[in-house]
Amino acid sequence: MKRYIISPGPVEVSPTVLSAMSMPIMHHRTPQFSEILTEVRENLKYLYQTNENVLFFASSGTGAMEAAVCNLLSKGDKAICIRAGKFGERWTELCNAFGVIPIDIDVTWGEAVDSITVKDILDKNPDVKAVFMQAHETSTGAKQPVKEIAEITKNMPETVLIIDAITALGVYELKTDEWGLDVVITGSQKALGLPPGLSTISVSQKAWKLAEKSDLPKFYFNLKSELKSYNKQTTSFTPAISLIIGLSTALKEMKERGLENVFLHHKRLAEGTRQGVIATGLELYSKSLSEAVTVIKMPEGIDGQKVNKILRDEFGISIAGGQGEAKGKIVRISHMGYLSEWDMIIALSAIERALKKLGHPIILGRAGAAALEYFAQN
Amino acid sequence: MKRYIISPGPVEVSPTVLSAMSMPIMHHRTPQFSEILTEVRENLKYLYQTNENVLFFASSGTGAMEAAVCNLLSKGDKAICIRAGKFGERWTELCNAFGVIPIDIDVTWGEAVDSITVKDILDKNPDVKAVFMQAHETSTGAKQPVKEIAEITKNMPETVLIIDAITALGVYELKTDEWGLDVVITGSQKALGLPPGLSTISVSQKAWKLAEKSDLPKFYFNLKSELKSYNKQTTSFTPAISLIIGLSTALKEMKERGLENVFLHHKRLAEGTRQGVIATGLELYSKSLSEAVTVIKMPEGIDGQKVNKILRDEFGISIAGGQGEAKGKIVRISHMGYLSEWDMIIALSAIERALKKLGHPIILGRAGAAALEYFAQN
Repeated sequence: MKRYIISPGPVEVSPTVLSAMSMPIMHHRTPQFSEILTEVRENLKYLYQTNENVLFFASSGTGAMEAAVCNLLSKGDKAICIRAGKFGERWTELCNAFGVIPIDIDVTWGEAVDSITVKDILDKNPDVKAVFMQAHETSTGAKQPVKEIAEITKNMPETVLIIDAITALGVYELKTDEWGLDVVITGSQKALGLPPGLSTISVSQKAWKLAEKSDLPKFYFNLKSELKSYNKQTTSFTPAISLIIGLSTALKEMKERGLENVFLHHKRLAEGTRQGVIATGLELYSKSLSEAVTVIKMPEGIDGQKVNKILRDEFGISIAGGQGEAKGKIVRISHMGYLSEWDMIIALSAIERALKKLGHPIILGRAGAAALEYFAQN
Repeated sequence: MKRYIISPGPVEVSPTVLSAMSMPIMHHRTPQFSEILTEVRENLKYLYQTNENVLFFASSGTGAMEAAVCNLLSKGDKAICIRAGKFGERWTELCNAFGVIPIDIDVTWGEAVDSITVKDILDKNPDVKAVFMQAHETSTGAKQPVKEIAEITKNMPETVLIIDAITALGVYELKTDEWGLDVVITGSQKALGLPPGLSTISVSQKAWKLAEKSDLPKFYFNLKSELKSYNKQTTSFTPAISLIIGLSTALKEMKERGLENVFLHHKRLAEGTRQGVIATGLELYSKSLSEAVTVIKMPEGIDGQKVNKILRDEFGISIAGGQGEAKGKIVRISHMGYLSEWDMIIALSAIERALKKLGHPIILGRAGAAALEYFAQN
């Protein structure tokens, strides 16, 4: 069966990246590889819109999230964890694992945190060392107001803002330096369009100062020793060579297209998809729409898991279902990865067919027609 | 320039593995991927010669080394670190990072630890919780007596033996269960013949008991939660999908050839290479020969780094130089990876040429001739 990956990670990898990654392996302690590293690092600065060095680890994105916790904080430090979905919860779990005291802000799933709430809690807890949040909560499709929250934290000399931008960086505008985002994390299997196994992290000067005081144990995810290696054009441990080769191709292509065009592409896919969802009588789940994912609320009585399964097993299409409290209630279409507008029409049409199959009264083709109309005009 | 990787990691990846890895990405939460996971896990048990589950992480081998420390030990625990080279030192660094008290046993580089020394120290320190060692110290090419040391630790109910087998497992005989090796770690870019970025770890029942008491912080490398995910046919965090697909191919091929033939292949390459080294008047560095790597002592006045550089830049051949105190004093030829006897002849011949170029009196072709003779007869 021909297979389509229209899920928010892993995403479809482009043939140019796949083919770069399938070249014979290169040794990582060679001038050839150091050259690639240098170029990748320059292009990561472009992607991050930062002048700081961007480090990376052979790990999933969660590894870089752990690095942020264990390198910047100390035992007993207080940190705000904004929990707008499943990935927000991970910050609390990480804090608990390392003896950091989390102050949780629970946000209704599908919604964005209110920056005034964050400000209030920071005012009441001036000793909070870090605010952890997602730029975009992948599990709900809700974009979070990082810029607004950075407006608050950037005036606090000893409080850093740590952003899981795993499904945001490279998807839509995120200005690391200009907005004052102290730590920005991403993973390879999202907007970068690579297989999973590589994470990247930027660290502001304010965050490096905090790192000086940190007493939490770290070794594999030690940012300071990684920076030392960085300055010697290498990595502390054997890097994920083939993923870095793939990243080199992906970033070059991204730069050639220009970030603004990459953002526009995601925006266009998202908008066309939403038009389709509404035209066929379905509802959007998120109240704070993102360009990374479109999340569709399942009609009363329809199990999203079943929709997902029909798409995967009968049509060869991987989209994503709901996680945690949204399990069965939603399905999620990715706009990240090697995808075009035609893939959006495929996903929408397949969802209509599955819903019809499950007994939901739906007229086939409406979603695709509306999306087609939008794409033709925009 | 045509390039050859004859270094002990990263190793040359076979075309079948490269091509499996360059297939379009597969979603990891699908029955298709779960099926691959199940098969990979069964084949890992075959490779490890164990009935225990073998877990894995998206990380380099060092990540799994960290997992052994932070999951099995508690703050203030004592552990013996056998340091027979650069990788042995890493155990001490890991213990120090996590507040475990290391008792170092320093072994002359190129030699194997004396198991009587280990026994003496264990007798004097019955509260030692773990013995950390390498099965084969990659930086010196010295095979270490894991079986003998396991004979000691397996009679100690509360002391585990933790083996970095990154350049041993799949290279030569290592019987996890029969010998009583509590934790055995490997990395993808060695005997498994994959690109780097995946580590695997087996855990004995004795080690799992220790894990119950461990109070060290862990999240990304949490073995207990990884085991829970394992039992649900999945992984805790997004796995290194493409590497697991490659692993699936590599393990199937290994099983088809049979472990004993794989071991024989390495032994043959190693023996032929050694014959070549001796025939051309050079010396072997290691006193405890391994089938993973042949380490050649550089003649007086010759800088091994220069030999390495000539091979790499002029001949397109990556072998390895020395690290730490052996820097400049040795070069290392790998027997791991997608390599044949002809590659050994290439490496030996290239080293002769480089030595001649650097002014060392050497007659070209002797090493290759001796190796050729050995390979013709064996």
